[in-house]
Amino acid sequence: MNASEFRRRGKEMVDYVANYMEGIEGRQVYPDVEPGYLRPLIPAAAPQEPDTFEDIINDVEKIIMPGVTHWHSPYFFAYFPTASSYPAMLADMLCGAIGCIGFSWAASPACTELETVMMDWLGKMLELPKAFLNEKAGEGGGVIQGSASEATLVALLAARTKVIHRLQAASPELTQAAIMEKLVAYSSDQAHSSVERAGLIGGVKLKAIPSDGNFAMRASALQEALERDKAAGLIPFFSRSFNYNEVQIINYFFHGSCFWCGLQKFIINPKMVATLGTTTCCSFDNLLEVGPICNKEDIWLHVDAAYAGSAFICPEFRHLLNGVEFADSFNFNPHKWLLVNFDCSAMWVKKRTDLTGAFRLDPTYLKHSHQDSGLITDYRHWQIPLGRRFRSLKMWFVFRMYGVKGLQAYIRKHVQLSHEFESLVRQDPRFEICVEVILGLVCFRLKGSNKVNEALLQRINSAKKIHLVPCHLRDKFVLRFAICSRTVESAHVQRAWEHIKELAADVLRAERE
Amino acid sequence: MNASEFRRRGKEMVDYVANYMEGIEGRQVYPDVEPGYLRPLIPAAAPQEPDTFEDIINDVEKIIMPGVTHWHSPYFFAYFPTASSYPAMLADMLCGAIGCIGFSWAASPACTELETVMMDWLGKMLELPKAFLNEKAGEGGGVIQGSASEATLVALLAARTKVIHRLQAASPELTQAAIMEKLVAYSSDQAHSSVERAGLIGGVKLKAIPSDGNFAMRASALQEALERDKAAGLIPFFSRSFNYNEVQIINYFFHGSCFWCGLQKFIINPKMVATLGTTTCCSFDNLLEVGPICNKEDIWLHVDAAYAGSAFICPEFRHLLNGVEFADSFNFNPHKWLLVNFDCSAMWVKKRTDLTGAFRLDPTYLKHSHQDSGLITDYRHWQIPLGRRFRSLKMWFVFRMYGVKGLQAYIRKHVQLSHEFESLVRQDPRFEICVEVILGLVCFRLKGSNKVNEALLQRINSAKKIHLVPCHLRDKFVLRFAICSRTVESAHVQRAWEHIKELAADVLRAERE
Repeated sequence: MNASEFRRRGKEMVDYVANYMEGIEGRQVYPDVEPGYLRPLIPAAAPQEPDTFEDIINDVEKIIMPGVTHWHSPYFFAYFPTASSYPAMLADMLCGAIGCIGFSWAASPACTELETVMMDWLGKMLELPKAFLNEKAGEGGGVIQGSASEATLVALLAARTKVIHRLQAASPELTQAAIMEKLVAYSSDQAHSSVERAGLIGGVKLKAIPSDGNFAMRASALQEALERDKAAGLIPFFSRSFNYNEVQIINYFFHGSCFWCGLQKFIINPKMVATLGTTTCCSFDNLLEVGPICNKEDIWLHVDAAYAGSAFICPEFRHLLNGVEFADSFNFNPHKWLLVNFDCSAMWVKKRTDLTGAFRLDPTYLKHSHQDSGLITDYRHWQIPLGRRFRSLKMWFVFRMYGVKGLQAYIRKHVQLSHEFESLVRQDPRFEICVEVILGLVCFRLKGSNKVNEALLQRINSAKKIHLVPCHLRDKFVLRFAICSRTVESAHVQRAWEHIKELAADVLRAERE
Repeated sequence: MNASEFRRRGKEMVDYVANYMEGIEGRQVYPDVEPGYLRPLIPAAAPQEPDTFEDIINDVEKIIMPGVTHWHSPYFFAYFPTASSYPAMLADMLCGAIGCIGFSWAASPACTELETVMMDWLGKMLELPKAFLNEKAGEGGGVIQGSASEATLVALLAARTKVIHRLQAASPELTQAAIMEKLVAYSSDQAHSSVERAGLIGGVKLKAIPSDGNFAMRASALQEALERDKAAGLIPFFSRSFNYNEVQIINYFFHGSCFWCGLQKFIINPKMVATLGTTTCCSFDNLLEVGPICNKEDIWLHVDAAYAGSAFICPEFRHLLNGVEFADSFNFNPHKWLLVNFDCSAMWVKKRTDLTGAFRLDPTYLKHSHQDSGLITDYRHWQIPLGRRFRSLKMWFVFRMYGVKGLQAYIRKHVQLSHEFESLVRQDPRFEICVEVILGLVCFRLKGSNKVNEALLQRINSAKKIHLVPCHLRDKFVLRFAICSRTVESAHVQRAWEHIKELAADVLRAERE
C-alpha cells in the first residue's frame, strides 16, 4: 500500500470510524458470541498472497464487530469508563505516523520533552504540590506509564531499592537477600489486586491492613501493624493508599470467567472489593492520617487514583486529594476518565532519582549517571519496558481541543448523570443505594437476598440492552452502574432505569411464584 | 469535536500523515534542537478555553517536528528498525475507535480471540513447534506483550513461581524467601540489559555466562557454572538464550546521554554489547547445545529474538531458530521488522498455565481457576498490566494486506541492502567489516584506532544527513549501519556510503595533519 492508496483508504477508515461512533447506540452493547466463535470464521493460516482492503473491511463487520463489547455505547455502564475522544484519535494517527521510539532523549527529543511538559500541565490542572512537577529544575516529575499496575510496581521497586541502599549504607555487611526477606509492604485490605501482584513480582511480603467500617485504612490499624512487624524484626518500607481515588474500585475480576456469559462458575475474589465510606471525608481523612505516619517511619507512600483522579481537575472535588503532599508517588489514569484514549497512565514522583535508581541495585551506577542533571530525561529509566510511543501527543491534543473548562464540564456531566440515576433508584422503595454517590458510579441493589440480585443482574446481562457488572460489598452482592460513555445522556440513563425496573419486577414476580 | 468535524479533520490528518511519509526524505533525519528546546515554545499551563484544530496542527510543524528524530526516513540507519506500514496505521485507527480494554474474554471477545488466532498464524509463519500454538486445545499459546523486556520479565517470573512450587511440593517446610535467596538465572554475558533488569525486579541472582570467541554462550561454560552453583547450594532455574536473534543486538544505550548530541559524557555500558560469531552456525549450535542442558536440569529456557525473529518467516533464515524446540518460552518483536507498528511483541509459551500461575504464589489459586480449561483466555493473567488494546488488528491487517510473500519480500529486500552496503565497505581498503553480515545490520569501521572511528561517527551525526549509532565489540569502537526504513532503496544506501567516505577522508586528513 503506497501513500496515495493510504490517502483513499485512510479517508474511508475515518468515515468508518465516524459511522461506528455515530451508530454505536444501535449496536447491541454486549455480543451474542460464544467462546471460540472466531477461529472457524477465518483461515487457519495467513494468506500467501495479499488480500484486498475491501475484503478486510468487510470482514471487520462480519467477523470482528459481532464479538465486540461496545465500551463506548451509551448503554455501557460496566467496569469503569475507558476514554475515547476524537482529538485523541487524531493525535494517535499522528503518533503512528511519526512512529518514533522514545526511550531516550536523543531517540526523539520532542517525544520526551512534550511528555515532561504535558505531565506538568496535568499536574497543575490537579493542583499537585510543586514538588511533583518537573519545571524549574525541581527534583520531581511525571511520566506516562501504560497502566496503574505498572505504576504501582515501579513505585514498589523504587521503594525497595531505596530502603536496601539506606540499610546497606548503615550496615554494609547486610546482603540484599537478608534485607528483602524482611521487607513488608502495606495496603488496605480493600485494595486492588495490582498491589498484591506488585508484591509478588517484587518478592516482598505484602500485608493487608484491616479497613474500618467505611472500608478505609485508618492510622490506628496501620500503626498497630507497624509496631507488631517492627517488633518481629521486619522492615516496613512501602504503603499504597487508596485515598478517594480507589474508593469505588469495585470487583470486576473473576477467577474463571465472566458471570454474564453464563459459561463458567462465578467466583469473585474478595480481595478486590473496595468501596466508599459513608461520608466523603473518610478517605480524605485517611490520607491525612496515614501520610504523616509513613513520612515519620520512612515508608514510601504511593497514592493510586486510577479512576477518580480525573475528577480532581474540578475544584469541588480537589479536596479528596488532600494529603497527597505526604506521598512519594502519585498515579491516576487519564485513559479512564479524561478523554485521552488508552493507554495513558499518569505517574508523578517527588524525587525522580528514586525511580531512575530502581532498576539498579548497584549504587555506583547512580554516581556515573548524568541523566539526573535535569538537562536530559531518558524515560526508559522510569519504566519497565524499553520502548515507548509518543503518547503525550494525545494529552496535548485533548487538553487543547477541550480546554480545562471543557474537561471539567465533561466530568461534571458524568457526576450529574450518576446522581440522576441515584435519585431514580431512591424513588423506588424496592431498591437501595449501597454507598454514597460522589463521582460517576452508583452501587445499588434490590432490598433482599443476594440471590434475587444475582438473578436481576443475570436478566440484565442476558437481555443485553445495557451492560453492568456486579461487585461484593462485604457480604452483599451489589450492582454497579458506572457512567462510562462520552455520549451518554439523561435519556439513556432514564431508559436504562426503566429497563432495570421491568426486569426487577420480573425477578420479584418469579421469586414470589 | 463531533463526528462530522472528525470526518473533516480526520481526512486532513490522513493527508498530513501521507504528506509526512511521502516527504520524509526531505526532512533532516536528526533534529537540531538542544535539550530543553520545547518548554519555552508552549504555554506553561493548559488553556482554559479550547484551542482550534488549525492552531494545533500548525504547532505540530512549528514545535513538534523540529524535535523529531525521523525513524522512518530512508536515511535513518540507527538502532534497529521500528515497524511502520499503512495497513498497521489503518488498523490502529480502528483499534482506537473500538477502544475496548481486553483484559478478559468477556471484556471484548473479539479482542481476545483474534489475538489468539493471530499468534497462531504468526507461529505457523515461523514454523514454531506445534507445542507453542494454541489451536486444537493444546497447552501452549501466544500473547502480545508490549515489549521484549516485559516478555523476559514475565518468563522469569513464571519460572520463579514454577520452581518455588516444585520445591515446596517436595519440601513443604521451605519458605519462599529461603528458596528465592538461592535461585540463579543465567544469561550470556553478551545479553541485553533487560535480562539484568528482570533479575533485579524479580529479586533473583543473575549470572553472566562467559561467552566464547564468537560471543556465544556455549554448553561447556553453562555446564561449568551449573555445577559450581549447585555445589554451592544454589538453585539454577532460568536461562535466557540469545540465539541468532539477539546476535547483533548492539549497544545503543548510554549512561548519561547520547553521543551525538555532544552534550554529555559518552559512556557505553559494556554489558550490552553483543555480536555475531564469524560463522552462521555458532548461535545455531548454541541453542542446540544449551537447550538440552536446560531441559535436563529443569531450567526454564527463554529465547529472545527481538529483532531477528521476523526474518524466520523466510525459509532460508529459519534454520537460525533451530533449537527453539527446547525452549519454554520464545519472543520476538513484529514491531521491529514485520511492519506491525509499535507496540507488538509476540511471545509464546509451551504451557500457558506456567504464565497464568506466575502472579500467584498460592497454588490454591490455580485449583480454583477455570481459565485454563482451554475454552476462555483471560489475557490479563499473561502479562504485567491489566489493560490491553486491540493490538491483534494490526497483525491481521498487515498479514492480509502484504500476504506472507509480501512480508518475505520485505525482509529479503532489507537483507539484500545490507549486503550491498557490506560490499561497498569491502571495496574500500581503508575500512573493515567487523562481523559477518547475515540480516539487516552491518558493523564496520575504519581500520585503525577507536579514536579515528569516534571522530568519524561524530562527523556523521553532526552533519545529520544520515543517522547512525555506534557499538563496542570487545574493545573496538564500531559503527553500525542498520537497514531500517520501509522505503529505503539502493540509491539511499549508495548516497549514505558516498557521504561516509567523504567524511572518512576528512577525518583521515585531519589525523595526518
